[in-house]
Amino acid sequence: MEIHPSIFHKKNVIISGGLGFIGSNLAIKLVGFGANVTIIDSLIPEYGGNLWNIEPVKDKVKINISDVRDGYSIQHLIQGQDYFFNLAGQTSHLDSMQNPFEDLDINTKAQLSILEACRKYNPGIKIVFASTRQLYGKPQYLPVDEKHPLFPVDVNGINKLSGEWYHIVYNHVYDIKTSVLRLTNTYGPRMRIKDARQTFLGIWIRNLIEDKPITIFGDGSQIRDYNYIDDVVDAFLTVAGSDQWNGSIFNLGHDEPISLRTTAEIMIEENHSGNYIFKPFPDDLKKIDIGDFYSDFGKIKEQLGWYPKVAIRKGMKETFDYFRNNYQYYV
Amino acid sequence: MEIHPSIFHKKNVIISGGLGFIGSNLAIKLVGFGANVTIIDSLIPEYGGNLWNIEPVKDKVKINISDVRDGYSIQHLIQGQDYFFNLAGQTSHLDSMQNPFEDLDINTKAQLSILEACRKYNPGIKIVFASTRQLYGKPQYLPVDEKHPLFPVDVNGINKLSGEWYHIVYNHVYDIKTSVLRLTNTYGPRMRIKDARQTFLGIWIRNLIEDKPITIFGDGSQIRDYNYIDDVVDAFLTVAGSDQWNGSIFNLGHDEPISLRTTAEIMIEENHSGNYIFKPFPDDLKKIDIGDFYSDFGKIKEQLGWYPKVAIRKGMKETFDYFRNNYQYYV
Repeated sequence: MEIHPSIFHKKNVIISGGLGFIGSNLAIKLVGFGANVTIIDSLIPEYGGNLWNIEPVKDKVKINISDVRDGYSIQHLIQGQDYFFNLAGQTSHLDSMQNPFEDLDINTKAQLSILEACRKYNPGIKIVFASTRQLYGKPQYLPVDEKHPLFPVDVNGINKLSGEWYHIVYNHVYDIKTSVLRLTNTYGPRMRIKDARQTFLGIWIRNLIEDKPITIFGDGSQIRDYNYIDDVVDAFLTVAGSDQWNGSIFNLGHDEPISLRTTAEIMIEENHSGNYIFKPFPDDLKKIDIGDFYSDFGKIKEQLGWYPKVAIRKGMKETFDYFRNNYQYYV
Repeated sequence: MEIHPSIFHKKNVIISGGLGFIGSNLAIKLVGFGANVTIIDSLIPEYGGNLWNIEPVKDKVKINISDVRDGYSIQHLIQGQDYFFNLAGQTSHLDSMQNPFEDLDINTKAQLSILEACRKYNPGIKIVFASTRQLYGKPQYLPVDEKHPLFPVDVNGINKLSGEWYHIVYNHVYDIKTSVLRLTNTYGPRMRIKDARQTFLGIWIRNLIEDKPITIFGDGSQIRDYNYIDDVVDAFLTVAGSDQWNGSIFNLGHDEPISLRTTAEIMIEENHSGNYIFKPFPDDLKKIDIGDFYSDFGKIKEQLGWYPKVAIRKGMKETFDYFRNNYQYYV
């Protein structure tokens, strides 16, 4: 299913986490489609929000700096909106173990207050929620489809699970139009590269650009799948544009899963320089590591026609181009 | 595996929700075993706490009236304890939809603060957490074993799921000794009979004693399983007494699942009078109803030797005897 840009033309769209990696890319695309875009972002320094991310559209969007934990601001901002891309969240697994209550407030409680606000003040809104493959935990089989048992291995996984399930229950019980995407590793322009908080790819990109070696934990044989940002933006728009699958959960993924070592090698090639070293897993990471992972995205492919169109080499090339030109704004 | 009472002799045991149905029965049993029992209970009127529940042991236990949301009191009270029976919770599905944030605070956030307190101040404690079959949602197959997909149908189910999973993650990551029991309908002396907040059996018992007809929603063909309180107390003690299965989740259940209509008929016989009427499901209940349910308790039977010993007729007889003699304290 191709997304028809006209679906979003003159529509009111709100994006939580809209200054972040995925949110800003969505905002830019939606502005191009003629949507009236409102961005909510807390600009918490450890998260992905970055004003530079929306530089190309900064005069064409409404920016509201606030936290999704601020229930009253949400209550006001969602009124009159047609679409809500619900992307704000705490994504760091380690941070969730160190500050479990903050993670709970953002990834769980704030989701409940968003849904309560929609139920009371805008029950006709369509919400697409950004969830994560992290909920599956250590895979019991590969590729991991949506029927795979849920087995979160850290506080972040548990809290995201609740946040996701509120969306499903509010659809089933109150008929709020919600859909959920379970994202795998997403990369591309506008991601956080300051550190590994968003994904390890962030710090790898930074280190390669800075001519530093990148560190692979373990022996490099671990398998991962990666989605380029443009594919992920397409998935959000596709799901938003279809009411046929409200209350559904869809995996994203890529048909090109590769090992960490191969990932590093491709990145080094696309960066035209660099090297990597192996290190044993640090204890805190080892305890919440999930081994090999790649997901089965057959459901969204079959039901909505979405599939990833960008191969990793091409995506990494674009990513390095972007960060080489915009390095100063991201470190 | 028989529980050896000596395991708990002179041990320090804390029970959250200890004035409630299961908590008070556990307290009475543990006092008999020579344990030093501390009870925490909030006495929130809509919950199960009732001072009359511990009448037989009231001078032999320490009672601390406080809420599990009160993190500092928990932090103090868990110190020096050997066992923590973690039973405090909001159990009403309808209340969870009407007050989702309160349900979240008690069933999720308070659980996280209990576990954080244990991690910091008493990492050697053994915790047994009371969870619920509600997490499975509408069964995809029967009987429902622990591998059944989790599919909570209401806010209560989601919040209990997180509370449960924190216990598992704190075992896996921090080696806190935790086990989880997923309870089905539990009944017996000291349950809440004022209304249907704990289970529909409560209000049925009350109505029968008061010579009022009991109401069956639907056509009465729905299947349920029931555990008598003594069996459930045994399960808690058995799991507490074994460190072999820390980090594990066990279903309870009964090998005698019966329809609602049969349940009503048995109860009427054991009460020696009464009658029932059918009513269509109210809308709010229908949306979160789960159809037939009975669980597979093979895992705890195989690994710990627990199985339910009390048949429903015998259990109901004991229950009606108790409430007939103590009616005034429960309504």
